[in-house]
Amino acid sequence: MPSYTAPVRDTRFVLDHVIGLDRYSNLPGFENATADTIDAVLNEGGRFVAEVLFPLNQVGDSEGCTRHADGSVTTPTGFKDAYRQFVEAGWPTLSAPEAYGGQGLPHVVMTAFEEYLCSANMAFQMYPGLTAGATAAILAKGSDAQKALYVPKMVSGEWGGTMNLTEPQCGTDLGLIRTRAEPQADGSYKITGTKIFISAGEHDLTDNIIHLVLAKVAGAPDSVKGISLFIVPKVLVNDDGSLGALNAVSCGSIEHKMGIHGNSTCVMNYDGATGYLVGEENKGLAAMFIMMNAARLGVGLQGLGVGEVAYQNAVAYAGDRRQGRALTGPAEPEQKADTLFVHPDVRRMLMEAKAVTEGLRALCLWGALLVDLSHKAATEEERAQADALISLMTPVIKGFGTDMGYRVATDAQQVYGGHGYIAEWGMEQYVRDARIAMIYEGTNGVQAMDLVGRKLPSKGGAAIQAFCAMVAEDVAAASSGPQASVAASLQASLGELQAATMWLMQNGFQNPNNAGAGAVPYMHLMGIVTLGLVWLRMAVAAQRLLDAGEGDRAFLEAKLVTARFFADRIAPRAFGLRREIEGGSEALMALPPEAFAAAA
Amino acid sequence: MPSYTAPVRDTRFVLDHVIGLDRYSNLPGFENATADTIDAVLNEGGRFVAEVLFPLNQVGDSEGCTRHADGSVTTPTGFKDAYRQFVEAGWPTLSAPEAYGGQGLPHVVMTAFEEYLCSANMAFQMYPGLTAGATAAILAKGSDAQKALYVPKMVSGEWGGTMNLTEPQCGTDLGLIRTRAEPQADGSYKITGTKIFISAGEHDLTDNIIHLVLAKVAGAPDSVKGISLFIVPKVLVNDDGSLGALNAVSCGSIEHKMGIHGNSTCVMNYDGATGYLVGEENKGLAAMFIMMNAARLGVGLQGLGVGEVAYQNAVAYAGDRRQGRALTGPAEPEQKADTLFVHPDVRRMLMEAKAVTEGLRALCLWGALLVDLSHKAATEEERAQADALISLMTPVIKGFGTDMGYRVATDAQQVYGGHGYIAEWGMEQYVRDARIAMIYEGTNGVQAMDLVGRKLPSKGGAAIQAFCAMVAEDVAAASSGPQASVAASLQASLGELQAATMWLMQNGFQNPNNAGAGAVPYMHLMGIVTLGLVWLRMAVAAQRLLDAGEGDRAFLEAKLVTARFFADRIAPRAFGLRREIEGGSEALMALPPEAFAAAA
Repeated sequence: MPSYTAPVRDTRFVLDHVIGLDRYSNLPGFENATADTIDAVLNEGGRFVAEVLFPLNQVGDSEGCTRHADGSVTTPTGFKDAYRQFVEAGWPTLSAPEAYGGQGLPHVVMTAFEEYLCSANMAFQMYPGLTAGATAAILAKGSDAQKALYVPKMVSGEWGGTMNLTEPQCGTDLGLIRTRAEPQADGSYKITGTKIFISAGEHDLTDNIIHLVLAKVAGAPDSVKGISLFIVPKVLVNDDGSLGALNAVSCGSIEHKMGIHGNSTCVMNYDGATGYLVGEENKGLAAMFIMMNAARLGVGLQGLGVGEVAYQNAVAYAGDRRQGRALTGPAEPEQKADTLFVHPDVRRMLMEAKAVTEGLRALCLWGALLVDLSHKAATEEERAQADALISLMTPVIKGFGTDMGYRVATDAQQVYGGHGYIAEWGMEQYVRDARIAMIYEGTNGVQAMDLVGRKLPSKGGAAIQAFCAMVAEDVAAASSGPQASVAASLQASLGELQAATMWLMQNGFQNPNNAGAGAVPYMHLMGIVTLGLVWLRMAVAAQRLLDAGEGDRAFLEAKLVTARFFADRIAPRAFGLRREIEGGSEALMALPPEAFAAAA
Repeated sequence: MPSYTAPVRDTRFVLDHVIGLDRYSNLPGFENATADTIDAVLNEGGRFVAEVLFPLNQVGDSEGCTRHADGSVTTPTGFKDAYRQFVEAGWPTLSAPEAYGGQGLPHVVMTAFEEYLCSANMAFQMYPGLTAGATAAILAKGSDAQKALYVPKMVSGEWGGTMNLTEPQCGTDLGLIRTRAEPQADGSYKITGTKIFISAGEHDLTDNIIHLVLAKVAGAPDSVKGISLFIVPKVLVNDDGSLGALNAVSCGSIEHKMGIHGNSTCVMNYDGATGYLVGEENKGLAAMFIMMNAARLGVGLQGLGVGEVAYQNAVAYAGDRRQGRALTGPAEPEQKADTLFVHPDVRRMLMEAKAVTEGLRALCLWGALLVDLSHKAATEEERAQADALISLMTPVIKGFGTDMGYRVATDAQQVYGGHGYIAEWGMEQYVRDARIAMIYEGTNGVQAMDLVGRKLPSKGGAAIQAFCAMVAEDVAAASSGPQASVAASLQASLGELQAATMWLMQNGFQNPNNAGAGAVPYMHLMGIVTLGLVWLRMAVAAQRLLDAGEGDRAFLEAKLVTARFFADRIAPRAFGLRREIEGGSEALMALPPEAFAAAA
């Protein structure tokens, strides 16, 4: 029943007029990203996900994955065929290096397409998404031989990949890992242990699955400093790249989850499986963080993607459903009732969804460009600047992005009234799917602590100072123009952010619990300033085009209105968030654990 | 895996020391509510729901209800036997009138027990909950003969009851109802039409189900002024009370929903079914609102109840699960990791859940007392005052209460990390169950419009003025005592509420869309002030007992800390909400519907 159209026009607006991709055409990889190529990727990619993957989204939810007695796992009806088409069309290769069979396009182009994938079928998107993360880790830390042996078939999509971190006793705190690795005479290791919550851990889409596994070598430090990273293929790979014997790794069970039913979430048992060290012993965490950082931006995209498809359907429903009359008198007196669009509270939810999804789109694409620039910008200084900025914004994109994606999905469901609660309409699936994004790849609380505890104090606060200076510059530039009121709202939010930052610097240093207690509201405050910044930039860009008589007038005017909505209705939350942060940790930490018990 | 303990001590604290039930012992019904009776209801009731109903909660979710080819519906394993025990123990009769076999206890006592029911098994609770609503409507508007024929068996729980409002084309806007009623020679009517989303519409728990159905008599006005209310029994009832022939009403299908799977949500087909008019023709809406208002307070309780059980489990998990170290250094160095309790962000979620659930409990019990007083207080003036206050607070209890219940359930799930997403841990069910409470009995947007569009302007704003004066009085009384800082925080929130009220009065009169656009944030702002008020009252009560050396010291001190937490960390959101309201409706209403489309 639900429908989906890739928002190509909106993506193009951001790429062309907000982050100005053509300014970077001199950088490696960007020369391939011509307007024609981007058009092809977005239009054909948008069509592919809408026609092939989206129709499988509800099927995947209702069927889920099935584990058989032999430990094999079958994905929902249609997934295998769709994956074959996905691989044949070359979609996994977009931004992979040309040396390994990729198309070498910038990360930002892949990101634009990835959003559409997440909207169409988040559970499906996770299969190639995990593979891409595993590939990135091997490319960054693997030996040349490992890269040659594994990467080409992972890039093509012939083989899958996974990340194996979590164990029953060990989630956020990776120092607690028990999986052990015993060195063998031939330089390989025997890996033994149980990993849980392994997304795409076992399935029928690919001939092989390359598991990246964190384990401890005997005698290693009993902390995160004793973790090593291993390649553990499901099927061992011969030196010539052909498949050899089955490895001693198996799927023990799959989880019954709230959502993303189409993705198999596995308990993986390693029983002396053959593993190959990636990089050096005891340096596994750094390698894993390469995957994690890319993955966190990808999870932020899931928040956006699911929010977008939920929003699109709420818009369609609001236009179809007639109920009640406009407060200002019947809008369509010849009908028995007006559409839901006349009701301000429905508008409130739709406008918030529009402002948030379009804002997150601009933010995610900008973030992806910064990832590109952190590797490829012309000067060391530019690369360092881009890296500092995206490091600061990664927890915001993941944590704020997915919190808002869940909110948008919940609001979109609310627009449907009772029908939103019924499975066949599809809206409740979006809420259930969106929910996981706030949890995995580091819960949003962990993201917030990364922001407040690591990113903020790093280099004496250089990154946040540079960020605030950048916002202030945009505000100053727009303050005397037609977007002055949008700029003024952003300036007010920025003031709250600066005050909260100052408070955290002073009080968090004195008592780190103040930083921990303020972390999540601070992440949201920073999210509001960041979205405010991209909305100011979008408004300025739209105004420039309107003044020049270019582009679609109605589309551009809607940007101006939505920027104003953000400024008037969402930005003010900054005032509450700052004060919540300043509420500190005193009452929050005061009670002994037993005071929480309900006992009579 | 999850567990539940009825928070009897907390309920008693509110009844005894916050709303002071013993002050009303001179009123009808209250004389039965002795300390011993209340103790028995709370302790035995708490034990019953924990031992009999709670163990069926996950079963009910995973099995759901089953409709058979003949239209009959089977409830999940164990429900029928549990319902029998529920009826045999007399739980449905607590607050029903003695004239019809009830125990005649005040509504506030029933409400205390009802919270426990909602926590233990919300899907189960809906069966007797709907019956009680239908009973209330017959008692209020039915003839003496109808009362005598139907009410005793509904009070005892032998028969069930339902509310039939919604149709495929008609949800909030009841003017669109198509179900028709044809008068018959014998004074009855033939009812024909289709009703959807009928909770407990068909099931195997009772011998009969008394459907209350809204329909239009031929020639009635084509609006809400043409709606009549009918009793349509599943099995016709002979004059002597014995069961007669099956009526022409049947369950056409049951819905697959996001949650509350243990309750059957039915499409009900009326094919010339025999119905009996309740009250007068075309006055059905007023009768239905009697049910709706009681039901709305009950739905607010569902928000509290599900939030409470989710919170209790998050507390247990936080104490069991060890992950990471306190920011201030290891709390238990002899362990490999500290419990989740050391992490400020986990505390933030647990303290918010504690402050919200305990606050909502006090609010719901106070609200229930006001319902009692609106009927039974000694003077007309006191009855009118209580009625005005509960009318004002009903949308807040329903709308804010269920929004917060969902938030608490989501946060409690978040405390579990990845395990929160897995069905067997039970946390994700609470989120799915809590979600419906924001939708049914009038979506929370409808509640907010009721507050802003009807309750606020009523009698020139008398109710909100009286409310604000009452808050100011409590603030003044506490301002020089030990709870001065809690009072100061409430005063600040009250200032924001008064400013927002003034803004709405001025700008909503000028343009009603301003009222509609501000409705939901205003409902939340009022919720924050209302919870702030009950927290101030709880703090003052706890302080009084501490000063007198009475009660459990640790329990009372936890009240003081939680009041401070509310004041420091939740109340400040009022600043953002007021500014969001003042953002108005201009940008919010500016776009034409086609500007929301994603099309490329």
